[in-house]
Amino acid sequence: MNKKPVNGMRDVLPSEMELRSYVLSVIRDTYRSYGFTEMETPVVESIENLQGRQGGENEKLIFKIMKRGEKLRIDEAKEENDLADSGLRYDLTVPLSRYYAAHEAELPKPFKALQIGPVFRAERPQKGRFREFYQCDIDILGESTKLAETELILATTEAVSRLGFKNFVIRINDRRFLKAMAASTGLSEELYGDLFIALDKMDKIGTEGVQEELLKLGMEEKKAETLLQLFTASEEGESSTERIRAFREKLGQYLDPAAADDLVDIIETVEKAASGRSVKAFSLAFDPTLVRGMGYYTGPIFEISTPEFGSSVGGGGRYDEMVGRFLGQQVPACGFSIGFERIISILMDQGFKVPQKAEKTAFLLDKRLAPEEVAEVMKKAEELRRNGAIVLVQKMAKNKKFQRDQLEAAGYTRVEEFFRD
Amino acid sequence: MNKKPVNGMRDVLPSEMELRSYVLSVIRDTYRSYGFTEMETPVVESIENLQGRQGGENEKLIFKIMKRGEKLRIDEAKEENDLADSGLRYDLTVPLSRYYAAHEAELPKPFKALQIGPVFRAERPQKGRFREFYQCDIDILGESTKLAETELILATTEAVSRLGFKNFVIRINDRRFLKAMAASTGLSEELYGDLFIALDKMDKIGTEGVQEELLKLGMEEKKAETLLQLFTASEEGESSTERIRAFREKLGQYLDPAAADDLVDIIETVEKAASGRSVKAFSLAFDPTLVRGMGYYTGPIFEISTPEFGSSVGGGGRYDEMVGRFLGQQVPACGFSIGFERIISILMDQGFKVPQKAEKTAFLLDKRLAPEEVAEVMKKAEELRRNGAIVLVQKMAKNKKFQRDQLEAAGYTRVEEFFRD
Repeated sequence: MNKKPVNGMRDVLPSEMELRSYVLSVIRDTYRSYGFTEMETPVVESIENLQGRQGGENEKLIFKIMKRGEKLRIDEAKEENDLADSGLRYDLTVPLSRYYAAHEAELPKPFKALQIGPVFRAERPQKGRFREFYQCDIDILGESTKLAETELILATTEAVSRLGFKNFVIRINDRRFLKAMAASTGLSEELYGDLFIALDKMDKIGTEGVQEELLKLGMEEKKAETLLQLFTASEEGESSTERIRAFREKLGQYLDPAAADDLVDIIETVEKAASGRSVKAFSLAFDPTLVRGMGYYTGPIFEISTPEFGSSVGGGGRYDEMVGRFLGQQVPACGFSIGFERIISILMDQGFKVPQKAEKTAFLLDKRLAPEEVAEVMKKAEELRRNGAIVLVQKMAKNKKFQRDQLEAAGYTRVEEFFRD
Repeated sequence: MNKKPVNGMRDVLPSEMELRSYVLSVIRDTYRSYGFTEMETPVVESIENLQGRQGGENEKLIFKIMKRGEKLRIDEAKEENDLADSGLRYDLTVPLSRYYAAHEAELPKPFKALQIGPVFRAERPQKGRFREFYQCDIDILGESTKLAETELILATTEAVSRLGFKNFVIRINDRRFLKAMAASTGLSEELYGDLFIALDKMDKIGTEGVQEELLKLGMEEKKAETLLQLFTASEEGESSTERIRAFREKLGQYLDPAAADDLVDIIETVEKAASGRSVKAFSLAFDPTLVRGMGYYTGPIFEISTPEFGSSVGGGGRYDEMVGRFLGQQVPACGFSIGFERIISILMDQGFKVPQKAEKTAFLLDKRLAPEEVAEVMKKAEELRRNGAIVLVQKMAKNKKFQRDQLEAAGYTRVEEFFRD
């Protein structure tokens, strides 16, 4: 028998669990107030769906589950998939798309889904990165207009604000901008992905670093310069909508004008709708270098940047073609995923204290209490609980100071002792 | 791509999910008020722990997860465990015992744990039985006295009552009674398990049926008769405590007298402590035929019977020896598991309506609204949400009646329409 959790996964101690439950309840309550409804799929999906080329790099990280009984033929097996017909999901988006395709007739249109649950990736274990972690996604399926993006951003910024985050930035871009930039350079389509990866590094390696990478891709020097001027030409003081218009002008024929209109519209609507919030915790910024890894995005993409914490705490975008792969007909879709584990780790680092709603009282029982006396104490505890209190009943320990310290650390502000009459 | 969930598992639709969330919140709130703290382990455990002969029949139902990378040697594999080093947990008790052994130094003593999560068993799929299902367990580790049993029963009956269940019975027995009965017949110890299985069927096959099974085990006819007289001799009108005392007398030297004292004490304390409840929803009944499957129980065992629904909706007992297998030193432990899926299915069959706390309003937008007008509506929605309402914003559908019906079904009691000025 082995005391440790399996490699790369971890146990959650009660203090962290209290924080996790609190954060989940804030997120849940916020999303519910926007009309999102919770749903759930199994953590196990068929290998066929997990390896359907929607998951990008994640498809290499699948925990595969062995076939059972007669189906398992170890002697005849040549490769992994001879032995496995299912695996643990690596995200919530592929299962949601399958779910929508399976239950379309029973779901409202549009369908505003809230999904919270563990996902699994067999990554090399490293600090802060685990092989089982929670995702917390909202998605709107069946809404083709920017109403979806607007609502996703409003709901998610509200949830993140309620958790105490301030001064965060919603970076926003559109896959159509990225494609137009790529097309304007004359690069062949197979290299678009590499180009995006290079652009994505702009804030890390700077314009010059990106230029080097573009040249390595075989882009003409002049084309690379023209492309990069797009970024450097825009002034610091320019607003996002001005910047979007400048890009639109320069990208000319390569850009679907609706892409620019959509972004301007999303930014303006979100800003106006959120203008009544008591804390204006966030701003929106057009960021033409924002790429987001997943290949399935088709339109606007966005990410929550928290400069203080040096990383993204969420992101999403429009993926209009994924449900169609299951259903056989296209269903517009757009989602926003909160980086739940990242948020928990930031709050823990900050020493965040979970607000306590109920008074916590501990009843300590002398060992010599008669059974009827114990029953009386328990009855009293029940009465307090009916009035909303948390009441812990336990034996008095030999080391009273240790017990009191432990109870205090757990938030028990009142301690009552019961001795034999 | 395959629309269906994997064989034997299922998707949860929003209406059921709403019920599940509600039931979980009632259970959570109740258990927290008794001082239980939530914790979590990975859904994946090492094969070594899953096959440690603690799980009984469940060990045959493990979903095994394939090794990865260099560790996976398909060509050299002879048996399943050459290919798998972990698997999906089949219960929450084995992981809890491992968890306690791993984190003992950081946990309060006694540790009152609340665990909610999915478990997995590769059973033959059949109606109402799924391969992934939720368990909802409370356990007290480090408390050797019947204070643990008493609290577990009080907390669980309170949770089940708050969900509207009435007239349920907590059947209670003790493994030590079962062993004493077996010993009194002179049966060899290897056959105790079979004897218990026969006794467990008493309410299905009656005394005569059980007698037949006992004779098949090779028990002398006279011994079998004496054993069965234990059950038939007790009068209908006898109270549980009278019945326990009668058994004690008859079992004489075979029974540890503490077992009888414990049971009487648990019954009397629970009844007295719960006497202040506004709804006395349950009763306690000594049932010497109660066995409970798991081999790891060592003392009192209990089960929630709901005669109206013809099956158990929860059960548990004391298992003082399991943590020791991980830790190397014994830690007394006792747990109670609510049959979450069974409760959900009963409530769904009854057409249970989840109490709605918030008013639900739908804002329907005319397609021709200008972006500024959409922003105004969204701002208005935000204001209502700040006052606790649920506000859904969506486009007006072409089929207005269908949309209204759908919204009404989803609990939206107010609908407001917005047209272009």
